[in-house]
Amino acid sequence: VAEAVEYRTGRPRDGSIDQRALAAARDLLIEAGYAGTTVQAVARQAGVHASAIYRRWPSRLDLVRDAAFADFPPGRVRPTGDLRRDLRRFVRAYVKTFAQPVVQAAMPGLMSEQSGLRTSSGWAQLSVRPHFRELLAAAPPRAVDPEVDPDVVFDLVLGAVLARVVVPGDVRRAPSIDATVDLVLRAIEPRGRSRRRR
Amino acid sequence: VAEAVEYRTGRPRDGSIDQRALAAARDLLIEAGYAGTTVQAVARQAGVHASAIYRRWPSRLDLVRDAAFADFPPGRVRPTGDLRRDLRRFVRAYVKTFAQPVVQAAMPGLMSEQSGLRTSSGWAQLSVRPHFRELLAAAPPRAVDPEVDPDVVFDLVLGAVLARVVVPGDVRRAPSIDATVDLVLRAIEPRGRSRRRR
Repeated sequence: VAEAVEYRTGRPRDGSIDQRALAAARDLLIEAGYAGTTVQAVARQAGVHASAIYRRWPSRLDLVRDAAFADFPPGRVRPTGDLRRDLRRFVRAYVKTFAQPVVQAAMPGLMSEQSGLRTSSGWAQLSVRPHFRELLAAAPPRAVDPEVDPDVVFDLVLGAVLARVVVPGDVRRAPSIDATVDLVLRAIEPRGRSRRRR
Repeated sequence: VAEAVEYRTGRPRDGSIDQRALAAARDLLIEAGYAGTTVQAVARQAGVHASAIYRRWPSRLDLVRDAAFADFPPGRVRPTGDLRRDLRRFVRAYVKTFAQPVVQAAMPGLMSEQSGLRTSSGWAQLSVRPHFRELLAAAPPRAVDPEVDPDVVFDLVLGAVLARVVVPGDVRRAPSIDATVDLVLRAIEPRGRSRRRR
């Protein structure tokens, strides 16, 4: 079937094959979950050869990752000089991107391929960690205690986002994003800082 | 096969059936993942009738949850009067319990059953949230700002634990638990608190 489709439409350029494979993988993730999103099924749905997919993605894991996380990292928040506001916008965008149905559909399967996750090197480019560091670095003077390690802060923020995405509904209380950001700000402010002392 | 085994060993008490089903489910989760841990497979492995399993657990989701999260909530940390120490022990125990192979094997499958997770009511009793609240409530005077909502703090801690458990290795930096707890303590301390001012 794949050959017939490809014959009929003419051989598309590689870029087009990539886009069709990614779109097909996204459709399959929503319709059939991770289990149904095999390279063969994607090839069939996209009307391309499986070998063409394997030329671009070494494994199904890599293909699913790129298909599901196509919107990662989320758009950059431009620092406004108001760290509270910037962090709220950052966390909202991050939660929203994770909450997409295609990401939700792919996450469990990606998680279960533990060894794949540990060895695959394609994740780093999807990380919002560099963006988060930039936001903190652009914060107004004295907003962030220089003793605080931005990576430890990012770990907390990432966790708060994941907790909203993976935790069962009746255990999760899902405090508002604003409340979570306020707590993170308390953690990163310089010690002893208060309006009275300025 | 199930009938033959049950016939041979005599009909065990219900409690024993429960234990055998849970043990079989745990074995299957490790060996065959969530996909292979069906009620039928568990019944076969445990040598019990599937109907006996359904009498105890309304669905495979409930059975897998109880099998995988048998050690939840982790043992209680007794407050020592040193909140930093208590929280470190709490988070370490929590991470360790989540990192068990059987929990890791079950998590993706449980996550993918989104609607099940949302409607199932068996999760609340596995939550460590009440335990965490107790730890904060037992903290020494002035260790915790009364303005801080313990549920928002718990959300951060839960997230930090999950981030260690579900995030791909090359994105995760996994700051030490001590560093994460120190940051959480900064967040919950009363404002303007410093040694100089006491």
